[in-house]
Amino acid sequence: MKVNNQHYRTIWNNKNIIYLIDQNQLPFKFEILKLTTLAELCITIKEMNIRGAGAIGAAAGYAMALGVNEADSAYFFEQLNQAKAQIEATRPTAQNLFGSVKRVYDVALRATDPVKTAFEEAEKIALEDIAACQKIGEFGAELIQDGFSIETHCNAGWLAFVDYGSALAPFYQAKRQGKQFFVYVDETRPRNQGAKLTAWELANEQIPHAIIADNAGAHYMSQGKINLMIVGADRIAANGDTANKIGTLEKAICAKAFGIPFYVAAPIATIDLACQSGKQIPIEERSQDEVLYQKGMDVDVLKEVICRVSNPTSSALNPGFDVTPAEYITGFITEKGIIQATPQAIQGLF
Amino acid sequence: MKVNNQHYRTIWNNKNIIYLIDQNQLPFKFEILKLTTLAELCITIKEMNIRGAGAIGAAAGYAMALGVNEADSAYFFEQLNQAKAQIEATRPTAQNLFGSVKRVYDVALRATDPVKTAFEEAEKIALEDIAACQKIGEFGAELIQDGFSIETHCNAGWLAFVDYGSALAPFYQAKRQGKQFFVYVDETRPRNQGAKLTAWELANEQIPHAIIADNAGAHYMSQGKINLMIVGADRIAANGDTANKIGTLEKAICAKAFGIPFYVAAPIATIDLACQSGKQIPIEERSQDEVLYQKGMDVDVLKEVICRVSNPTSSALNPGFDVTPAEYITGFITEKGIIQATPQAIQGLF
Repeated sequence: MKVNNQHYRTIWNNKNIIYLIDQNQLPFKFEILKLTTLAELCITIKEMNIRGAGAIGAAAGYAMALGVNEADSAYFFEQLNQAKAQIEATRPTAQNLFGSVKRVYDVALRATDPVKTAFEEAEKIALEDIAACQKIGEFGAELIQDGFSIETHCNAGWLAFVDYGSALAPFYQAKRQGKQFFVYVDETRPRNQGAKLTAWELANEQIPHAIIADNAGAHYMSQGKINLMIVGADRIAANGDTANKIGTLEKAICAKAFGIPFYVAAPIATIDLACQSGKQIPIEERSQDEVLYQKGMDVDVLKEVICRVSNPTSSALNPGFDVTPAEYITGFITEKGIIQATPQAIQGLF
Repeated sequence: MKVNNQHYRTIWNNKNIIYLIDQNQLPFKFEILKLTTLAELCITIKEMNIRGAGAIGAAAGYAMALGVNEADSAYFFEQLNQAKAQIEATRPTAQNLFGSVKRVYDVALRATDPVKTAFEEAEKIALEDIAACQKIGEFGAELIQDGFSIETHCNAGWLAFVDYGSALAPFYQAKRQGKQFFVYVDETRPRNQGAKLTAWELANEQIPHAIIADNAGAHYMSQGKINLMIVGADRIAANGDTANKIGTLEKAICAKAFGIPFYVAAPIATIDLACQSGKQIPIEERSQDEVLYQKGMDVDVLKEVICRVSNPTSSALNPGFDVTPAEYITGFITEKGIIQATPQAIQGLF
């Protein structure tokens, strides 16, 4: 999508150097990071300079390619395994990460020119992600009627993928179709990806929206002000249970209580058929400092500050994700169409 | 309750000067404000230096007494009406505020010594609040079993009343009874009264607890980690519908989905029999800056900072309260005992 009238992907390769938009600087600064080693790229995944299902998937592919590039031919197999484990340890809940790493790993092991093959496969993963998001946008836009208000949680926009996004792709498509609609953007504590990234994306695309505290969702639902909710997914189990940003479960339960359609938009790569139900999805416990402190921009001095927003003698718990059971999900918006959240419908995609 | 081993109320009168704990400075600084005029006290109510149902009720009583004190005998009636309207405009959703103002106004109009009578009535309101909270603690503690984990939202602790609190009073009583339990404290965006005030109260009383993002409640419920939820109330309608801090509705819906008892602890003064259902409760729309910016303590320089935590080109919506329908409420913990959330049971309290 466009930033300052120039087209960007969230991550790209130029001569085997990886470039990515530093999402920890957004929405206050637009900066590009240049990464030449596996270790550097792993840090950006772990520190969430790049984040979101598809973008992590692409980053993991490029990371594995960098790992292949750095492997010594004498210890090639051992070093590949080490690189794979290193990448997999960065974000243990992200399904796309595991798939991408495995794809690049597998082709590199069989290739006569492992480095070239690895970077080609990583690029293919990125291009597939772009194509899938475009299709998700087309299918999802059919759900958006003129005059709708739609709630979304976290950032499953183009910043979370290589381009276009999952949950926000239908918004961009509907906007191009000339539909008028309004978006309620959950701020998405503790990291405020909604308030910072989704709002930034929507503002750039001139889509009318308002940021709301995560607490306000059910209130607007109860007032009849939400027609539809669309969120992304970090991992979808074979039975339709869906892991996504913490707070998604709460929204899904409330949407059901008020009879509001609740859709999960995600490329098929997000589905983990080996995972039979949500109970098997590991939930990443993140640093308590994300809850106890808040990062923002001191607008008086235009300087980033980290401030304590909690009692100094208390601690916090910080699960990064939750699992929404399939029964709360109206359907999945995928690149092959909109399907019900049932094991049969999911199986039918493959 | 105690602060630094000295007993404090949240608000008190000494020689017709009103003193209150500045809750906007907590948990980082413990400071007492001294207020000599109606205008000053109204500002502290509006700016939430003092906040919470019972504390607002007491503050409103003292404010009305200050208004009586300032009234010119030639325009006594007009100025009393003006003072009443001025106080009522500070926090339009707070039921206790209206009741207290009316009580002091009514006695002052009939009194031979209006100033003395008004301050006496205001003190009576404060003492009744303390007594009610003590009883709520005793009744509510019966719900807390050894080994329980309990979630609470916002701050309905002693800081929200004159002493003891409503939702937290059962915790303090159970602690005195030697029960072991753990509290999940919702941070309660946008103003973080949970992370800042409830956590501060619980830490002072050495009750084990952790702050969680508001988004994490349903996750812990789904994991079977929440046995009970207790919240406060800002206004209870005759049919049991309850207005409380934004986000309460979301928690109540989730608690019901997981079969977790959801109690509202509140003095009977919080019930507004004239209000037949939650639909009639006005919801205060607060400044969008509370969502777009976050106030905290820069721990490097020990200075309070306000930082932007959202996209600079986006706006926000900020409803301060929501209404939880009675069907989601297991019961009310009042100073007259625990009752069901039905019109009949509520009527029986009067």
